[in-house]
Amino acid sequence: MRGAVEEELAGLPLVDHHCHGVTTAGLDRAGFEALLTEGGPWPGSDVSFFDTPVGIAVRRHCAPLLDLSRHSPADVYMARRTELGAREVNRRFLAAARTGVFCVDTGYAPPGGTSPGQLAAAAGAAAFEVVRLERIAEAVARAGVEPDAYAGAFRAAAEAEVRRPGVVAVKSVAAYRTGFALDPTRPADAAVTGAARRWFAGGGGRLADPVLVRHLLWTAVDLGLPLQLHVGLGDSELRLPRSDPALLTDWLHLTAGTIPVLLLHCWPFQRQAAYLAAVFEQVHLDVGLALHHVGPSRAREVLAAALEVTPFRKLLYSSDACGPAELYALGALAFRQALAGLLQDLVDADEMARPDAVRFARWAAADNACRVYRLSAPS
Amino acid sequence: MRGAVEEELAGLPLVDHHCHGVTTAGLDRAGFEALLTEGGPWPGSDVSFFDTPVGIAVRRHCAPLLDLSRHSPADVYMARRTELGAREVNRRFLAAARTGVFCVDTGYAPPGGTSPGQLAAAAGAAAFEVVRLERIAEAVARAGVEPDAYAGAFRAAAEAEVRRPGVVAVKSVAAYRTGFALDPTRPADAAVTGAARRWFAGGGGRLADPVLVRHLLWTAVDLGLPLQLHVGLGDSELRLPRSDPALLTDWLHLTAGTIPVLLLHCWPFQRQAAYLAAVFEQVHLDVGLALHHVGPSRAREVLAAALEVTPFRKLLYSSDACGPAELYALGALAFRQALAGLLQDLVDADEMARPDAVRFARWAAADNACRVYRLSAPS
Amino acid sequence: MRGAVEEELAGLPLVDHHCHGVTTAGLDRAGFEALLTEGGPWPGSDVSFFDTPVGIAVRRHCAPLLDLSRHSPADVYMARRTELGAREVNRRFLAAARTGVFCVDTGYAPPGGTSPGQLAAAAGAAAFEVVRLERIAEAVARAGVEPDAYAGAFRAAAEAEVRRPGVVAVKSVAAYRTGFALDPTRPADAAVTGAARRWFAGGGGRLADPVLVRHLLWTAVDLGLPLQLHVGLGDSELRLPRSDPALLTDWLHLTAGTIPVLLLHCWPFQRQAAYLAAVFEQVHLDVGLALHHVGPSRAREVLAAALEVTPFRKLLYSSDACGPAELYALGALAFRQALAGLLQDLVDADEMARPDAVRFARWAAADNACRVYRLSAPS
Repeated sequence: MRGAVEEELAGLPLVDHHCHGVTTAGLDRAGFEALLTEGGPWPGSDVSFFDTPVGIAVRRHCAPLLDLSRHSPADVYMARRTELGAREVNRRFLAAARTGVFCVDTGYAPPGGTSPGQLAAAAGAAAFEVVRLERIAEAVARAGVEPDAYAGAFRAAAEAEVRRPGVVAVKSVAAYRTGFALDPTRPADAAVTGAARRWFAGGGGRLADPVLVRHLLWTAVDLGLPLQLHVGLGDSELRLPRSDPALLTDWLHLTAGTIPVLLLHCWPFQRQAAYLAAVFEQVHLDVGLALHHVGPSRAREVLAAALEVTPFRKLLYSSDACGPAELYALGALAFRQALAGLLQDLVDADEMARPDAVRFARWAAADNACRVYRLSAPS
Repeated sequence: MRGAVEEELAGLPLVDHHCHGVTTAGLDRAGFEALLTEGGPWPGSDVSFFDTPVGIAVRRHCAPLLDLSRHSPADVYMARRTELGAREVNRRFLAAARTGVFCVDTGYAPPGGTSPGQLAAAAGAAAFEVVRLERIAEAVARAGVEPDAYAGAFRAAAEAEVRRPGVVAVKSVAAYRTGFALDPTRPADAAVTGAARRWFAGGGGRLADPVLVRHLLWTAVDLGLPLQLHVGLGDSELRLPRSDPALLTDWLHLTAGTIPVLLLHCWPFQRQAAYLAAVFEQVHLDVGLALHHVGPSRAREVLAAALEVTPFRKLLYSSDACGPAELYALGALAFRQALAGLLQDLVDADEMARPDAVRFARWAAADNACRVYRLSAPS
Repeated sequence: MRGAVEEELAGLPLVDHHCHGVTTAGLDRAGFEALLTEGGPWPGSDVSFFDTPVGIAVRRHCAPLLDLSRHSPADVYMARRTELGAREVNRRFLAAARTGVFCVDTGYAPPGGTSPGQLAAAAGAAAFEVVRLERIAEAVARAGVEPDAYAGAFRAAAEAEVRRPGVVAVKSVAAYRTGFALDPTRPADAAVTGAARRWFAGGGGRLADPVLVRHLLWTAVDLGLPLQLHVGLGDSELRLPRSDPALLTDWLHLTAGTIPVLLLHCWPFQRQAAYLAAVFEQVHLDVGLALHHVGPSRAREVLAAALEVTPFRKLLYSSDACGPAELYALGALAFRQALAGLLQDLVDADEMARPDAVRFARWAAADNACRVYRLSAPS
């Protein structure tokens, strides 16, 4: 028998404040596995990404949504997936996610991925857009600009992007590019120009210069929208130790009182993120991506650590789903189960009153995101 | 039905080897919330610190001690608190803490906070004093001294302080000032003089020079008393990555065989602290502050991680309570529940014999602290 | 009643892919305690290493194997140990470990420790050898060689060692010597010669030069055998923050597609190790040493964290036992209990199918190691 909090969360449409587009193309097994992992593809390897916690969760929780029995073998699963076709598969999993609002990071899309509008249509939901700042900066460099005009051109391009309808936030992958152990101060104009000159002389491309990454983070402050920051868990391009969010402390001091900051994923730095959410008013966090990668049974411990000192106003939901529609469903499932289980146990142990638990569940499921991004509640 | 270890711990008066004074002034809601958190106050924010794990714990566990029902709303709680008055509120919570000995860090006091003697009187307990070395060094600078006389003057002032009756330990907040990634060697006299000159030239104030912080830690060695070190969890002035206690390894090698070292709080570096306690004879630890911030229901996991490799002789209890009397009661409650639950489960699973569990409970509750600080057992 | 996974794991002979020799000498209490810990001996201390999680586990799980009652006092335990004699004690504990294959790190042996062949004979098992590269390099330096001939001489000596029958892997303790925050590139010949010159001028001895440690890791790549790397938990010579395995990311990129890398112990960096195993095909991990140090009751949480994102093909078993035969038995017990408990719970919650759980148990117990080291399955 489910408890009150589980009932409440099961019935609530979620606001997924950070995800990517869903793949509309059909996927063969190799293609599916490659999108199921932050590693791989590993050509020639006999390691299957079905033999991971997330792979096990797909066979357990997604197979029944394709009319298969629980734990169906991978090949059976893939055959049924192909049989139903991408459109029907996506429809089923997006419906299962019961997500009312998607905030879509358009800075990275999977092969054949939907736009925010297409995702919204497929899910019968609303969609907003999160603009990735590195992509804008790199487009400015690619378009060609004098080094001393880079700062202004980037700012103008970013302002144009965020003024588009439906854009609710910006995002940075600074964690990937330089990590967070940056000089926290706003770089001087001359320093930005010099760094842009070196960047362009090197042919532009991937923005990874520490001065320009700092400048990008300060441009986010100027833009005034909430800033999403990738933290922790990612692919092999990450240098995990440099993505400890507590390395941002000085920058958070300097920018306190300006924009909301949203720490994404956070694993294995959940406690560091929680500390920041406890001591900086502007800091919020989620454990998206991590929840479905660790699987529903372990998601609870990951979430519990993230909540150890986090004010309940600061926890948001995201799936960080990207590609296979399964990930939207699994992310939502893992979040609902983990949060409900955790709160319900507190209620059952009389450590928390039921109305408080329900209130905090509503906050994390949707209200906190609506508050940060100034959205209407999903229906 | 409670098990034998729970009975044992419930009956034991604790030695709280690190806390601060209790606020004797009445507190309004804003004032109370500000003292409940390591963040804030956040003027203008609609985030209430009652909506945090520690806030939930106050409504659950403290409300009944004010004759209210469990989970009473925050405003009801505050009204009753005001009605009873600070003296009666403090009396009730301090009695509930069942703490026989307080070791009070007098280096930081909350507004209207008690002296050790006043805390002892209010609690019907004994109190000792822990002297904060940065405060002494800063007073020496403020009083005015030539740079080349700073080392001697600081040493003399510290010796005078620790010779006062009731002083049992010194404390450093090096974690806040420079972090622990310091040159571990004792600085040369000339280096100290040079650093003091720069410090005084800058107007004195907050001691944060790496040479002077090193010198302070080595002065602690000379003083010969146990040294308490803030580790991990704290307010936004902390730089969490620099407070990893394992960064002290070289210094612990150089000072092995001299003074006991007490790692305070430790979260989220409980395992790093446990490692140090396992491999350095002089290192001890507690998870004070963290236990009541994460709340009684999560305190057990925090403590369990801290005990993974820690010799049972090395765990101490502290509340790190500061300000509201609730925190003394909650710290004690979280510690008793977490430790008893953990040990009782081991006994119930026949992984530990009951007499061993009771012995370890006694050690952590009081004996280990009495041993380190050469105190009599509380009664 | 035990579940299917527990039955399966109980019946499986393990491959212990990393351990050391067992002590054949009798041990008095001080000698036994010193080998039970990564700390100590602490002469003059009244802290007993029996009063630690691993000490409690010895009294609980090992005493019955010596015909004593569970939780027998330490002195009773030691007396019985002496009475039976080392040969009989070792026979009993090695039999209890039910380990079919030992891969023995011969780079460090406890006092009176067995060779791989002697361990195999005592256990009725097969044994292979893991060659420690630092030992070879230091022997080359000791034997005397010109600095510009060091690289070639080390390579030749290592090749001779790994060509010996029964050698299946090499090991490095780079974590202890420099940590992993090294320049990841292969050092130029001239740099190696210069570093060797400085090393020899300093009298040789312990290899801890960053250039030479890098060179050693790249020599491992040239040798082509799997490379075991000490990570995390160890004695006080470690500098824990420098042993975060994620600091190896750049080196793992540069060496992808060459040799398998085995991360040993990993605690408290289990999640960092798991991330690497998830995103680098060549990375595998174990939580040996940690499992018996934290004790069987806590081993499960340690293992669960290590498995959060780890492909099931990447988990191996090791005891890292060294010295007292108890540690082989305890390591195996903790591993079997933790893995079986974790998988069985997933099966019982219908989160994993029983055949999958059994398959993953077999993989971790033996198959994964056989695959990496090209061994036959133990019988």
